[in-house]
Amino acid sequence: MTATRTAPEHAAMADKLSTQPYKGTRDFYPEDMRLRRWFFGQLRQVVESFGYLEYDGPMLEPFELYAAKTGEEIVNQQLYWLMDRGERKMAVRPEMTPTLARMVAGKIQELPRPVRWYSIPNLWRYERPQRGRLREHWQLNVDVLGGDPLLADAEILRVALGIFEAFGAGEFVQIKVNNRRLMDSLFKAMGLDDEGGRRLAKWIDAKDKMDPEAFWAGVGARIPGVEYRLEPVGLGLSEVDQLKIFFSAPLDLIATVFPGPGIDELNSLFKLLESFGVSTSISTKTGAKVVFDPSIMRGMDYYTGTVFECYDISPDNRRALFGGGRYDNLLGLFVKQPLPGVGFGLGDVSLENFLETHGLVPKLDNPIDVLITTPSEAALPVAEKIAADLRAKGLKVLLPLSLDGFGAQIKLALKHGARFAILLGEEELKNGTASVKDLAANSQATYKLSELSSHLRVNT
Amino acid sequence: MTATRTAPEHAAMADKLSTQPYKGTRDFYPEDMRLRRWFFGQLRQVVESFGYLEYDGPMLEPFELYAAKTGEEIVNQQLYWLMDRGERKMAVRPEMTPTLARMVAGKIQELPRPVRWYSIPNLWRYERPQRGRLREHWQLNVDVLGGDPLLADAEILRVALGIFEAFGAGEFVQIKVNNRRLMDSLFKAMGLDDEGGRRLAKWIDAKDKMDPEAFWAGVGARIPGVEYRLEPVGLGLSEVDQLKIFFSAPLDLIATVFPGPGIDELNSLFKLLESFGVSTSISTKTGAKVVFDPSIMRGMDYYTGTVFECYDISPDNRRALFGGGRYDNLLGLFVKQPLPGVGFGLGDVSLENFLETHGLVPKLDNPIDVLITTPSEAALPVAEKIAADLRAKGLKVLLPLSLDGFGAQIKLALKHGARFAILLGEEELKNGTASVKDLAANSQATYKLSELSSHLRVNT
Repeated sequence: MTATRTAPEHAAMADKLSTQPYKGTRDFYPEDMRLRRWFFGQLRQVVESFGYLEYDGPMLEPFELYAAKTGEEIVNQQLYWLMDRGERKMAVRPEMTPTLARMVAGKIQELPRPVRWYSIPNLWRYERPQRGRLREHWQLNVDVLGGDPLLADAEILRVALGIFEAFGAGEFVQIKVNNRRLMDSLFKAMGLDDEGGRRLAKWIDAKDKMDPEAFWAGVGARIPGVEYRLEPVGLGLSEVDQLKIFFSAPLDLIATVFPGPGIDELNSLFKLLESFGVSTSISTKTGAKVVFDPSIMRGMDYYTGTVFECYDISPDNRRALFGGGRYDNLLGLFVKQPLPGVGFGLGDVSLENFLETHGLVPKLDNPIDVLITTPSEAALPVAEKIAADLRAKGLKVLLPLSLDGFGAQIKLALKHGARFAILLGEEELKNGTASVKDLAANSQATYKLSELSSHLRVNT
Repeated sequence: MTATRTAPEHAAMADKLSTQPYKGTRDFYPEDMRLRRWFFGQLRQVVESFGYLEYDGPMLEPFELYAAKTGEEIVNQQLYWLMDRGERKMAVRPEMTPTLARMVAGKIQELPRPVRWYSIPNLWRYERPQRGRLREHWQLNVDVLGGDPLLADAEILRVALGIFEAFGAGEFVQIKVNNRRLMDSLFKAMGLDDEGGRRLAKWIDAKDKMDPEAFWAGVGARIPGVEYRLEPVGLGLSEVDQLKIFFSAPLDLIATVFPGPGIDELNSLFKLLESFGVSTSISTKTGAKVVFDPSIMRGMDYYTGTVFECYDISPDNRRALFGGGRYDNLLGLFVKQPLPGVGFGLGDVSLENFLETHGLVPKLDNPIDVLITTPSEAALPVAEKIAADLRAKGLKVLLPLSLDGFGAQIKLALKHGARFAILLGEEELKNGTASVKDLAANSQATYKLSELSSHLRVNT
């Protein structure tokens, strides 16, 4: 009986559309947007001080742009794509580097080098929403193409550190560095073919997402009846031991076993960073700013040399804040003579969580300076005139859009967080004056209209 | 034979992906992005001076959000949509107002009113790309919800005019205003049912896209053998004449035939704008800033009262620059007690074309301040140190990422548009000094490192 009686009401509610955003995405209400603008403003300031120029590309790109080199998991499981009305398969961009590569390749002859570009695109991946992972997020992308690879790698790491320093968080982060060429030597020594190497690389890249036991179980041979997150790599016991030793060895020890370009690049990079005053270490077990970690892999198929990830040093936060690496062949998708590049992508959700954890997100001021009251029709044109004058002087000025009394309109000013209310009563209108109420100091004074703006001191 | 010989070359080229962006979209190279940032910065400054707060929502929204009220042409012919992996039909947003309505409805009890919000989203429509029409464009959306509808309508028109004034283009535009309630009276008097009214409204809204002959032919009855852009409305001859008279009549004449709330709202709006110093006219054939035009319709199904379009007064540009209107029931999709609103959307492509036509797009300066030369390994750490100091002072500082000689590096500085080059030769390194080359004045002087920054005068 109860169900029957409430049915019409339910039906009426069911008619209404949901006000919630799509799962895994965010609405940015003005207070959220203020924070986002602050974040992005800080990011822009740092990367522009290094001479990076902002670019952007379309939200939809041809599917093939990602199919080639982005990595299987993203393309097969996480990509949002559609067929357009001309039967072209288009992807909602899941990452920015392929767009960057396409654009740089498109003007490769004319662009002054090194090409230093950055962007803050929104990116889409179909993920199970969880802390730090959303379906739509914004990501600062910073890349340098051309220039001496060693100097470029060092600069990219400096930019990454510079960003955290600008947020007052330099002391809380550590960058772990590895080299894909070194990993190739290891995989070769383990007797893995290309496919086996890719499988192992994927396991290594996913290691932060599982506990160590699950990780090592999956690296070995498949055990019947066990469910695996990814296809197990199938290494024999001696290869698993080899990998364990590799993961815990410092760079100097590894260098004796796998000499070659990977080791040389790592050593040169660390030496250069030291000369720039950045502390480095060949082992993860130190407080140095940049350390060698042979377990850093990165998921993208296009990385070829230096790869790195930045971590919160607090042990509560095990997952990488962001990462990047060197891609020397990516532009080869478009042009014959590729320009090598290195870069990173820093997501807004991870960054915001990190800064909140460390208490580094400021309280941002409300942006309204003045509300001009209009308690009568006669006040309307006067208020409009004052508003125009103050706006021309750079102030943010609200009108109430009502003829309510002073009390209600001052309440409105407080609600909107205005610093001042300008009162236009009968007396003021008759005398060509206006009373200014300082809502913070709760004081009031009356001025001639012509002198009004000089009496409004606001923090702009 | 020729074809055979060039085939391998063609095959090699065909292997490569295109560097072109998807048809109807744009790549924003740094020089384009600089312009976009300037445009958006100007827009933000104006709307924020009126107290509008920025918001944003996700790129993908449920299909139903547009199916309800956005209008048939957009939903059936122009929408980009996809099924997500959970079988939800998602649309790439073709317009922002439904997102705004959803978000405001979601916090309708807590938001201080009037709600003044703006956003500059990118929007997608599958259109035949042509001048002023692209598949992806950015659009300033400005809306006020709540407040006295008349005062709100007047404010929205003031904001629109304020934008063009800020670009120095106030004299080149005219806003044409109509009222949907008035059109409802007309359609009723013509004996049209709801469906007939919608068909005629669509024809009227499309009139800028066709020549007058085609327009009037389609308003009348279908003529066998003629191809129509839209379904003809099927009016009889006397109704067509009625419409012709209506379109050319001034407001005072129309008022005597169709008295009612539509006319009253228009008259009150014009009177209020006059009191604010905005010139108005009840006929289109004047130079007034805001004029009555009974042929203004707007395509969206959700408009209920005032509708308007802004035109370039130059006769070469016949199409509306942008438009907007009042929607009193849109939030009713989400909540029982809708909050009425009014707003407009101004696309970046139309605005940019308009400003270019009138010579109002400035040449924007290159943003690089200094390049520090590194002609030797010994110069690298010194350059890093100087760069860090200058960046901390707000300068944009490039490093060459090479050990090339002075000549090549100064050439690089010029290519990147740097204002100064700092030279670190053997002499300078030995003495702890640096030579500063002013690349604009072509002068040079040597300073102590500690005094360097005070000698770099740049326009920031």
